[in-house]
Amino acid sequence: LVRREITRVVSPGMFTDPEHLPARDNLFLAALCLSAGKAGLACLDLSSGEFRATAVEAGPPLNDELARLEPAELILAESQMEHPGLSQLSNQAAALPRTSYTGKPPTPNQAREILGQRLPMELEDAPKEALAAAAMAWGTVLATQRRQPEHVEELELYQVETHLILDASARRNLEIFRSLAGKGRKGSLLHSVDRTSSPMGGRLLREWLGFPLTDQKRIEARQQAVDELVGSHISGQVLKELLAELPDMPRLVGRAGLGQATPRDLAALRDGLLALPELGAELCKLGSPIFAKQKEQILGLDELAETLRKTLTENPPISLADGGVIAPGVDPDLDEQRSFSTQGKDWIASLQAKLKTETGIPSLKVGFNRVFGYYIEVTKTHLNKVPEDFIRKQTLAASERYITPELKEWESKVLGAEEKALELEKTLFLKLRREVADHSRPLMACSRALAVVDVLASLAELALSKDWQRPVLKEDGPLEIKAGRHPVVEDMLPEGEFVPNDIHLDDQEQQVMIITGPNMAGKSTILRQTALIVLLAQTGSFVPAESARIPVTDRIFTRVGAMDDLAGGLSTFMVEMTETSRILKQATSRSLVILDEVGRGTSTYDGLSIAWAVAEHLHNLDQKGVKTLFATHYHELTDLAGECPRVKNYNVAAKEYQGGIVFLRKLKPGGVSRSYGLQVAKLAGLPQNVLERAQDILNGLEKNGHSVKPAHQDNKTKKQLPLFETALHPVLR
Amino acid sequence: LVRREITRVVSPGMFTDPEHLPARDNLFLAALCLSAGKAGLACLDLSSGEFRATAVEAGPPLNDELARLEPAELILAESQMEHPGLSQLSNQAAALPRTSYTGKPPTPNQAREILGQRLPMELEDAPKEALAAAAMAWGTVLATQRRQPEHVEELELYQVETHLILDASARRNLEIFRSLAGKGRKGSLLHSVDRTSSPMGGRLLREWLGFPLTDQKRIEARQQAVDELVGSHISGQVLKELLAELPDMPRLVGRAGLGQATPRDLAALRDGLLALPELGAELCKLGSPIFAKQKEQILGLDELAETLRKTLTENPPISLADGGVIAPGVDPDLDEQRSFSTQGKDWIASLQAKLKTETGIPSLKVGFNRVFGYYIEVTKTHLNKVPEDFIRKQTLAASERYITPELKEWESKVLGAEEKALELEKTLFLKLRREVADHSRPLMACSRALAVVDVLASLAELALSKDWQRPVLKEDGPLEIKAGRHPVVEDMLPEGEFVPNDIHLDDQEQQVMIITGPNMAGKSTILRQTALIVLLAQTGSFVPAESARIPVTDRIFTRVGAMDDLAGGLSTFMVEMTETSRILKQATSRSLVILDEVGRGTSTYDGLSIAWAVAEHLHNLDQKGVKTLFATHYHELTDLAGECPRVKNYNVAAKEYQGGIVFLRKLKPGGVSRSYGLQVAKLAGLPQNVLERAQDILNGLEKNGHSVKPAHQDNKTKKQLPLFETALHPVLR
Repeated sequence: LVRREITRVVSPGMFTDPEHLPARDNLFLAALCLSAGKAGLACLDLSSGEFRATAVEAGPPLNDELARLEPAELILAESQMEHPGLSQLSNQAAALPRTSYTGKPPTPNQAREILGQRLPMELEDAPKEALAAAAMAWGTVLATQRRQPEHVEELELYQVETHLILDASARRNLEIFRSLAGKGRKGSLLHSVDRTSSPMGGRLLREWLGFPLTDQKRIEARQQAVDELVGSHISGQVLKELLAELPDMPRLVGRAGLGQATPRDLAALRDGLLALPELGAELCKLGSPIFAKQKEQILGLDELAETLRKTLTENPPISLADGGVIAPGVDPDLDEQRSFSTQGKDWIASLQAKLKTETGIPSLKVGFNRVFGYYIEVTKTHLNKVPEDFIRKQTLAASERYITPELKEWESKVLGAEEKALELEKTLFLKLRREVADHSRPLMACSRALAVVDVLASLAELALSKDWQRPVLKEDGPLEIKAGRHPVVEDMLPEGEFVPNDIHLDDQEQQVMIITGPNMAGKSTILRQTALIVLLAQTGSFVPAESARIPVTDRIFTRVGAMDDLAGGLSTFMVEMTETSRILKQATSRSLVILDEVGRGTSTYDGLSIAWAVAEHLHNLDQKGVKTLFATHYHELTDLAGECPRVKNYNVAAKEYQGGIVFLRKLKPGGVSRSYGLQVAKLAGLPQNVLERAQDILNGLEKNGHSVKPAHQDNKTKKQLPLFETALHPVLR
Repeated sequence: LVRREITRVVSPGMFTDPEHLPARDNLFLAALCLSAGKAGLACLDLSSGEFRATAVEAGPPLNDELARLEPAELILAESQMEHPGLSQLSNQAAALPRTSYTGKPPTPNQAREILGQRLPMELEDAPKEALAAAAMAWGTVLATQRRQPEHVEELELYQVETHLILDASARRNLEIFRSLAGKGRKGSLLHSVDRTSSPMGGRLLREWLGFPLTDQKRIEARQQAVDELVGSHISGQVLKELLAELPDMPRLVGRAGLGQATPRDLAALRDGLLALPELGAELCKLGSPIFAKQKEQILGLDELAETLRKTLTENPPISLADGGVIAPGVDPDLDEQRSFSTQGKDWIASLQAKLKTETGIPSLKVGFNRVFGYYIEVTKTHLNKVPEDFIRKQTLAASERYITPELKEWESKVLGAEEKALELEKTLFLKLRREVADHSRPLMACSRALAVVDVLASLAELALSKDWQRPVLKEDGPLEIKAGRHPVVEDMLPEGEFVPNDIHLDDQEQQVMIITGPNMAGKSTILRQTALIVLLAQTGSFVPAESARIPVTDRIFTRVGAMDDLAGGLSTFMVEMTETSRILKQATSRSLVILDEVGRGTSTYDGLSIAWAVAEHLHNLDQKGVKTLFATHYHELTDLAGECPRVKNYNVAAKEYQGGIVFLRKLKPGGVSRSYGLQVAKLAGLPQNVLERAQDILNGLEKNGHSVKPAHQDNKTKKQLPLFETALHPVLR
């Protein structure tokens, strides 16, 4: 029996085994420290060593941040397990597995002590909630892993405000990381733009999409690098091919730091490191400063690479116990033991032939099993020929097994030498792993640099393959997109079928676009693609448009279709109003607001009044207004353009054609007064008689205004109005 | 090194290891065979042995069935991997991992051959698609498991129509198995009603909720049993306690059938079987026929139980290799080998003391390791006292290790006896496991019976603890619920806060209820609870109401809030219309239709016209009409009551109170003309100036009808209308 001890504790946020880890997602362990109105939030990816903390407002900003990070587990101080602030967590955040941190959240002094070397000098005056959360995360890892994970980076303290903020609902509705329909990665922006070659690149791309920048210089530095690769297509291809050969380096380093790396893990790391000089040489050909910076991190690990190359065998086994991990020539003792073992085995191998001749037993065999070791087996028919000095050890049905003192002596040489060799290999391997762990910092920096190169190369390939263009970034001024496309929807359609659209929003003439048009015409797609283009531009990516001028945006708000949160006690309309309130309170003149059908969940007049007042408010916000796209079915809202100077009306056109409608999906100036709802209902297969009757009622409504008094149903059969003939509005151009 | 062979192939639908299985869900492997307009669908739970097949229409009915079963994997014939019918699969079904079945779907004759004994005689003329699908599922299992899973039951062929049908959207919207918000089990009907004590009971309850009955007699048989347990509370408690002690019997039998059961698995099965007589005795006290039927299945396994009891040790280890699985007295050979081993160990144990005295070496030790076996260890300081007949085997840093021929002789006795004992144990255990596998059929029948008893006891406890009442089931006639509650929402609220409501729907006077009322008032909850009460009644459960009269219903349709399927290319309104069309085409006079805000996603007049025509159509359906609950914000729809004799208006009342509104959540006759949308917006935190402006606009709208011409915004500051004073409608009683 093997004795087992608890060597580490594994909870949902702490998987480090490759089979439990999604290759292209981080697995974050988060710690939360609540105080009055504020929250410290730390997150740590034990597999890749990333470690960050921030302090945010409790309530929605905290939920947004949790939605961005999607941690697998939440650590809370024991004393805060019943904290009233927890009731403000979103459903998703509240459903995370919770782990308790003994006692109260650490004070700043305690936190500094716990964090020790993980706390960089310049962070001494970090917000106390962030420090406490970071210390709770780190303390929990120390307690459960039973060793110091060397590979975890210095704590990075960040501020939510230095990044473009998407609230949780915008992130969900814009389908950044997962699609709304299937909840999977497929159909998301991330899935559609990911051309990275390595797992670490894939994870970094997700981080960049989650944390778009608001610093023009940093954005332009990335753009410049992408641009250079777009210009020199071959470099990008070569880089991508080299990157594709690399293993998941940060996770290998992580496993070394945690003392979990197998011989095969270190061999994979070795192969990766040995490939770096070639990659570095390729980077030398490029001029962008961002590449020069990465190159520095990537080169300089030659010595460690050489140690690994010299020490390990070409293809070591996964398990140390199988032997054959350490290369010949590394250790004279090991080489000696191996030669003993080989000699012994050679002797035993020759024994069978020798004994066969000596005894004249043709069926004599030398075998091995775990219980008896080496033995000589003789079938029962030849027992009379067995020499006297054979010692009987075991009787089988058809044969007897023997040993001889000489055989056992050689056996003990072989086994003894093998045991000693294994011991030596173990010692040497652990030393090597220790050495790798001691290089954790530069190795992690190198991994990160490789990921940066990978993401930049991925963005360049994307731009080339999909004909995306470099947007012009400005501190302020108009948002102008020529022939913009929706990156995900375009992929789903046959080539060339997607209809591009222009968007222009500024602070002088056209700040609020009211967009009307029939159902199915593509209003939502236009709204969403505008938000996605801004987001992509601020990650440093090129964008799906002929050209784009993007003012640096601080927040993107969206209010599109909500679902009932019945169990949470909120009606659809309540969810809609709560989100709208948040937008009105948080939007600034540097934000982009996307509203789709606000006011839909209540009665017509109530909804229209609210939609009107909301649009007006956004137009007048802080005397400056905010850039807004507002899609609506309330055609009455187009009157707003007469009242507010910077409101302009647009519509997505449709055309009547052979009794049905054709969606042109083209945004044009002006309002429309029809939604073609019945035509869409017809497409959806509503029975003909129901459609006819609805047309009948609609005609009545349009004649009499809102005091509905439709024809009595008995009349129906008498005056069969031809559907879609009398009532169609002249086609809009 | 241990040699490894592929002994079985594991794909997502074929996990049978307990750690990979959700205790209370089935893990179905599904096979699909498409033909013109039809589809054969088979599903097999390898862990519990359930095996069913059906033929359904391709398109929505197939998707509904896949949504009900939630398989983990889909098997398709190689020849159908590109079948055009696959494009009709829902997103969820299309995302299932697919496995290919070599070649074409089997013909009926091939299918019969593949299925062999799994095909009951009476199914000879089953639909060919269902047979083919079943054969594909079974064939795949045979090929991958490399042995015949004995425990899989005879194929059960079912027809979708013999059960109450909920389409995929109703199942999702009514949150039967998982909540919409978090997608988890929590917040679902299943989670809220599950009081089962055993995993097999938990799975059966899920099956009952997924397949409610339409056969009045079968429903009443279940009701009678629940009723009896409600009346004799103690019996129910005793049964539940006995059931709680049982292991997951079908899965244990399954593992025995697959040759995977460990000694500990069989011991758990033994303990379960030994507990059955007590459970049977308890069942004897009950009179309902359904209990008598289960009792027959549960008793009659005494002989197998006795064999297990006699053969296995009390607490066998998980692994056969650890020994100690077979009890003493079962096999004389085994007992003999064990006594040899014991004697040898005793002798070796006494050797240390003996040698210490003889040699005068106080530190002399007898030890064991895997490489050298038993040895005598002497520290270097005493080497001069080592007797001549000690044979040196190994040199350590501070000591030498020796053997003696005598020691090795005893060692070989011990090890030989242990090896033989293990061999014997293995043979005996495999024979025992074979014997259990041979009893698979009665064991599975017994497990199923236990699950039935568990579910019935669970329903009884639920009824008692939550004061649910037995509904009266009738072939037809009115649907009448007195003081009905929503089973899940009620749980979320403090005791006594949930407001019950009556529902009456019949075919003469009141067939379509048009329900108006403010947002947040609870219209959706009333709609959903009505559907859930009908569903619960038809599973045999009591219902959350003071009393209920339920006509057997063939289908429940729901059309409630949809989400944009942007990637799928459908707008919200299109989804809504597609679902509505399906309802209008498939509803019968025996259906229940739940419509929430149909017509919302388009312009006011279009939406109102469609809503009106849809309501009329349902009222007039096949000259009989269909029972319908229709919640709407179109107050104009209340005029329909004047046109259609069986349409009645209801509203969910709210009351003005101290400047806000109080939701009474009580359904009352009559329509309302207000939605209190602005009041809800105020609750949601819309800024005060926006609210005031919206009120201003609303006043204008109400005066001038639909030709909106609100006051110019510059007037705003001048005529600050007091919010919620002038515009409130008189409170409805």
